[in-house]
Amino acid sequence: MTDRSTATTGAAPARLVVEPTPTPPTARPVAPRGPGRRGLGVGEVRLTGGFWGELQTTNAAATIDHCLSWMERLGWVANFDTVATGRTSGDRPGWQFSDSEVYKLLEAMAWELARSPEPALATAYDRLVERVAAAQDPDGYLNTCYGHAGQPARWSDLERGHELYCVGHLLQAAVARVRTAGEDLLVQVARRAADQVCREFGADGRPGICGHPEIEVGLAELGRALDEPRYTEQARLFVERRGRGTLRPIPLLSPAYFQDDVPVREADVWRGHAVRALYLAAGAVDVAVDTGDDELLGAVVRQWERTVERRTYLTGGMGSRHQDEGFGDDWELPADRAYCETCAGIASAMVSWRLYLATGDVRYADLMERTFFNVLATSPRADGRAFFYANPLHQRVAGQDVAADAENPRAEGGVRAPWFDVSCCPTNVARTLSSWQTSVASVDGDELSLLQHAACDVDVTLDAGGRFAVRVATRYPDDGVVHVEVVEAPGREVALRLRVPSWAHGATLVGPDGVERLVSPGWAEARAAFLPGDVVVLHLPVGPRLTWPDPRIDAVRGCVAVERGPLVLCLESVDLPAGVTVDDVRVDPGAPPGAQDDGAVVKGSVVARSGDRAALPYPSAPPVPARRVEVDFVLVPYHRWAERGPSTMRVFLPTL
Amino acid sequence: MTDRSTATTGAAPARLVVEPTPTPPTARPVAPRGPGRRGLGVGEVRLTGGFWGELQTTNAAATIDHCLSWMERLGWVANFDTVATGRTSGDRPGWQFSDSEVYKLLEAMAWELARSPEPALATAYDRLVERVAAAQDPDGYLNTCYGHAGQPARWSDLERGHELYCVGHLLQAAVARVRTAGEDLLVQVARRAADQVCREFGADGRPGICGHPEIEVGLAELGRALDEPRYTEQARLFVERRGRGTLRPIPLLSPAYFQDDVPVREADVWRGHAVRALYLAAGAVDVAVDTGDDELLGAVVRQWERTVERRTYLTGGMGSRHQDEGFGDDWELPADRAYCETCAGIASAMVSWRLYLATGDVRYADLMERTFFNVLATSPRADGRAFFYANPLHQRVAGQDVAADAENPRAEGGVRAPWFDVSCCPTNVARTLSSWQTSVASVDGDELSLLQHAACDVDVTLDAGGRFAVRVATRYPDDGVVHVEVVEAPGREVALRLRVPSWAHGATLVGPDGVERLVSPGWAEARAAFLPGDVVVLHLPVGPRLTWPDPRIDAVRGCVAVERGPLVLCLESVDLPAGVTVDDVRVDPGAPPGAQDDGAVVKGSVVARSGDRAALPYPSAPPVPARRVEVDFVLVPYHRWAERGPSTMRVFLPTL
Repeated sequence: MTDRSTATTGAAPARLVVEPTPTPPTARPVAPRGPGRRGLGVGEVRLTGGFWGELQTTNAAATIDHCLSWMERLGWVANFDTVATGRTSGDRPGWQFSDSEVYKLLEAMAWELARSPEPALATAYDRLVERVAAAQDPDGYLNTCYGHAGQPARWSDLERGHELYCVGHLLQAAVARVRTAGEDLLVQVARRAADQVCREFGADGRPGICGHPEIEVGLAELGRALDEPRYTEQARLFVERRGRGTLRPIPLLSPAYFQDDVPVREADVWRGHAVRALYLAAGAVDVAVDTGDDELLGAVVRQWERTVERRTYLTGGMGSRHQDEGFGDDWELPADRAYCETCAGIASAMVSWRLYLATGDVRYADLMERTFFNVLATSPRADGRAFFYANPLHQRVAGQDVAADAENPRAEGGVRAPWFDVSCCPTNVARTLSSWQTSVASVDGDELSLLQHAACDVDVTLDAGGRFAVRVATRYPDDGVVHVEVVEAPGREVALRLRVPSWAHGATLVGPDGVERLVSPGWAEARAAFLPGDVVVLHLPVGPRLTWPDPRIDAVRGCVAVERGPLVLCLESVDLPAGVTVDDVRVDPGAPPGAQDDGAVVKGSVVARSGDRAALPYPSAPPVPARRVEVDFVLVPYHRWAERGPSTMRVFLPTL
Repeated sequence: MTDRSTATTGAAPARLVVEPTPTPPTARPVAPRGPGRRGLGVGEVRLTGGFWGELQTTNAAATIDHCLSWMERLGWVANFDTVATGRTSGDRPGWQFSDSEVYKLLEAMAWELARSPEPALATAYDRLVERVAAAQDPDGYLNTCYGHAGQPARWSDLERGHELYCVGHLLQAAVARVRTAGEDLLVQVARRAADQVCREFGADGRPGICGHPEIEVGLAELGRALDEPRYTEQARLFVERRGRGTLRPIPLLSPAYFQDDVPVREADVWRGHAVRALYLAAGAVDVAVDTGDDELLGAVVRQWERTVERRTYLTGGMGSRHQDEGFGDDWELPADRAYCETCAGIASAMVSWRLYLATGDVRYADLMERTFFNVLATSPRADGRAFFYANPLHQRVAGQDVAADAENPRAEGGVRAPWFDVSCCPTNVARTLSSWQTSVASVDGDELSLLQHAACDVDVTLDAGGRFAVRVATRYPDDGVVHVEVVEAPGREVALRLRVPSWAHGATLVGPDGVERLVSPGWAEARAAFLPGDVVVLHLPVGPRLTWPDPRIDAVRGCVAVERGPLVLCLESVDLPAGVTVDDVRVDPGAPPGAQDDGAVVKGSVVARSGDRAALPYPSAPPVPARRVEVDFVLVPYHRWAERGPSTMRVFLPTL
């Protein structure tokens, strides 16, 4: 243990004062080595309002500040000062992983500064980095919970300590910074921390892994950003070591909880703690891609396929169990106890994005859209200052409003909370929204592929040279028209591809020649020697539609859901007549739903039951409602639920 | 803290050597003060084989020894020696509540010794009591985890320490002993422990409560057994203090977890940790009855009613959530994630028994029967050496056999395990089976009421005087004939009542006059000046029948279950054709099930699905099976499932 107040040996972290370099246009969160398909850089795309533009603006204007204020208030930032001044003790505020929240916020700040360099934000970022840097031990170790006077020793609890997990998030923050602003103090701190991890856990070092994956994806990307193959190799080691029972069991949890049950390349499905499983998979894809390990890549593809087929909610949410914040068995997808942690949705998008870049398969972008609209966008309240942690598909009991200054248990209640005891989601939302636009499109050869339909300006240099700039105008998802105008194009035939979501049967594309043709789910492609002013228009059928669950999902047997474009809709109690609950509702699956505002209206009935009987709820004859009253029900987008006060809610509606 | 190796002051626990007194015939676990309805004493009833007689025999022959061996092996018994010899440290085997398992085993031994006084068991009991007694501190405090050198201080963690909980189980063991054998060393130890609790937590003492209720029911019954009103008063204090937020919050758990959210007399339903809620309710009934507090009694009745109506499984099991081993919201009753802890079933029977004694309402005996056959009897393996901890109604993935010498996580896997990390269930099963016969019947005035239909000899003295002895012959539940022969009767008109279960429509009673008449669910009564040799026969329709779930239970919508008499049946994968899983099965609710062996056969079909699609399981049209093959399915009693090796299983079978 190092008591920083008395440490006089070892190099103190050098203060690297640099003028930020201009952000390179292609700076982006995920940049696999080598040529091939790539996402957009923060200088290649700008959201111009619309659904995602507004979310990103709120994130910048409110959420980042909100997170910083809470972490200051709770002492999570001051923990760094405590280490820096050598005043550590056993009494430290926050969970052992609270450092990671500061790093995720730094990542959000770094991306936001590249998008919109506000001086106040730059100052806040610099101050925060200085406080973090001051807590780094001379040998590069950085953690405010372990390894100093009065604290447990470094690496003494790999199962639960989250030390490597925290470093992983530090590295992801540094990736954001080095790509957008060059090597600054944070990057130097990250480099030293990564080096320390490589010394400690390298091939000749401690053969350990972290109870919570994240270091893998952090090391892999920092290895790319700094062109440092040692980091990639260390990420590879961590991925390969996993699944061999090296972590000591945690009472009442199985080794699958932290994916130490089966090696990554042998596993068939994601299991255990969802965020852990998904962060690990993201790191595994990075390693597989950078090392040309097709077997490892294939393993993650296989896991994605089975998990999507059997362990994924209609919203794209993952995680069926509260007990371990984890996946359930195949087809175990309860609507009411759906965990669908916001962070798991973010992590799922991280994996799908990497798989899309590696394979070009449109289904990964489909799942990202579903998850973006119905998990990521569901979490933050409209003002960006309260969040859902869990995202169930059925709320049986209306929650109680949470005071603006109160922490909340993480996953109960059906109300968004300003902060949580375990508060991983708010900063994860912040970093994801601040860089969201980089996944709007991809570039590969002479192809520009629009993946997420959002109002934006895209301006890229194609691999074979030549600028290709388009302006996307759309009110999607309220409207299915995606209008793409060419602003600049190379003087040769190139391809503009637009993703047609899997549900979009009957979509059409109007090409630059003005001809409209039917396009199937997958890609709608216009290939031409485009001229500025050329227009391509995709028409997506975003009217409400019924969706049925696979009969193997017991929890929602005899129910249907209603979707509208990429949006899952839901029934909220605030839209029901007085005295009716969401559980009294039956819908008529034979009647097509109609559009209403940005939701839908469905035909159905309210069933009245005879009075309570105070007997076991298992009658000896088929229960028949005392009365049925025909009613039209208004459904609203799931991502907006509970914005009008506490309510009960259902996504899947009984037909029986 | 007291280091016993150096403690020289204070009265050492006196060694009370007594010849056991003969067991009074009416010795029984629950004996409310005052006249009125009472259960049977261990000298008033003897099981004569049959379903429950065999379970009790196996319990005596195998389970008690099994539990003792495990606790010796794991050091849970030696923990008492460690305290006695002053060698305590921070490194103690077992959870903080492991003492309670020793006490529950002592309770089982005490009841078993009264039923069948085997010398070897008597010796084992005496040795175990000596070791427990030696660990008692001079002032009466007794706990092997707190209060000694190297241990946390006494009462320093009321939320999680379980110190009072452990004392509660000690007192229940002492109740068994003092009623069956008089005041021995264990009783003296318990008296001193109870006195110490009263001094520490009395009206003028520490205003605390225990995070896990149990002290209430223990104090109340010891107060009755020793005629010590102070103990009743202390139980009352603990009940009244609860629900006022005195316990510090446990991170990520709500105060409802330990019922500290709402005072007992104000609550409408059981919530939070199921065993906690039910032990508390049992103690509250005891307090209410002994203090004439009808409001408190009414509160528990109200909680029972709403919980039974909305939060109880078909098996009688309680507890819908793994996360906190707790109740869910109303109607949240997933079959697959049903927790239905064995101990919660036992605790539910404890509450219902007390409510039955207090009110005479037959519905409490109905629920006890359901819970006895489908939770209590389900837990132990046929050989009495392995147990279920959780009792789900749907097993999606077959478990893996647990080695005979391996501990098991407590609630996963669908296989019975010899022991658990938290191993509360085996000893709870042991103590419950060893005294089970005392709840077979009740006596009130000139009425003998047979509640649980089991082969047995009953021989009671009626309140108004006169012996009333009957021999019950029955193969119930395999057969619905309950044949009651009068062996001895007072020379006046008395009543023999037999419970007619709520499902038994069409039951008949043949009276001593030979006349058969229809009897409705509730009570079938024969009132006569019985003579020895008189026979009363109850015919219960135990053929298989379909049962529907209330439509508010989302998790089993579109399903039916099959019951047979008091038994819930299930479909096990081992009874299916090769290649068919329990989740491919659909049953025809229009076809009445037929009897087969002790189970049933139902008509239905196997649905074949088209190949896996690796897509989200939410199609845009109603899914139609590729093929249906008509099949008859064999169902077996739920309590026997997984006895033929790991399997998958369903209680609720889809009809769609």
